[in-house]
Amino acid sequence: MTKWPLPLPMQRALALAEASAEAGEVPVGAVIMRGGKIISEAHNTPRTDHDPTAHAEIMAIRAAAKALGDERLEGCELWVTLEPCAMCAGAISHARIAKLYYAASDPKGGAVEHGARVFEQEQCLHRPEVYSGIGEAEATVMLKAFFSKLR
Amino acid sequence: MTKWPLPLPMQRALALAEASAEAGEVPVGAVIMRGGKIISEAHNTPRTDHDPTAHAEIMAIRAAAKALGDERLEGCELWVTLEPCAMCAGAISHARIAKLYYAASDPKGGAVEHGARVFEQEQCLHRPEVYSGIGEAEATVMLKAFFSKLR
Repeated sequence: MTKWPLPLPMQRALALAEASAEAGEVPVGAVIMRGGKIISEAHNTPRTDHDPTAHAEIMAIRAAAKALGDERLEGCELWVTLEPCAMCAGAISHARIAKLYYAASDPKGGAVEHGARVFEQEQCLHRPEVYSGIGEAEATVMLKAFFSKLR
Repeated sequence: MTKWPLPLPMQRALALAEASAEAGEVPVGAVIMRGGKIISEAHNTPRTDHDPTAHAEIMAIRAAAKALGDERLEGCELWVTLEPCAMCAGAISHARIAKLYYAASDPKGGAVEHGARVFEQEQCLHRPEVYSGIGEAEATVMLKAFFSKLR
């Protein structure tokens, strides 16, 4: 049996998540694409950077906006290994990300299909198209291994 | 009649909001205090910085965490002129801000008493004490003047 390969941006996001764990950070990786090209990529760095906002999504969005010289990332896709939290979902909306792809869902901290459900709020000015579950098994294995080591 | 003076941190946050408007940014200012001392301050800079995450609260939190060398701002107060959005409320929770004081409530974009109500979610790991309405009139006048000029 041949397993269907993951899309390349999610493969890259998973590699970044692995690098995150090796750096002692929660294993989450994010990649921003436009027109088939990588615009930016990042993993979690709150501990390393002493920055509580330094989730993979925020760092990738900031880098992409800097690279494009525009605070709005029209036509961009964000690929991330974990369901975004309220902070990151808010940033995704502010940045006008067109499509969001995430791997593992996160009942404890996610705010897309759980909790604050940021994109489902009436006041939400921009909602990305959302696709979940791509690479879920791979992302979940990494997260479980990371948190079991902490215990 | 003598008007009761606003607390000094909110006076400073309002002055930062005014500077924000003068720079062509939405007039929102934020100050982070600990033990009666200013740790950091900021106003909105998304347009200037090409950074969709550069709300006053995020910038002040990042600067305070950098200044204190700690991603957790234990015992800190955040004073801001507008009800935080979902992104900023999420960051406030991640940063473990102890007390949040805001001036104007924001039915269109706020996520404390409106919309996503981030701190009211069961999954929210840290909720600050919240005080609202301090300096509301002053903040509202500035916001209205800014948005009426844009039309």
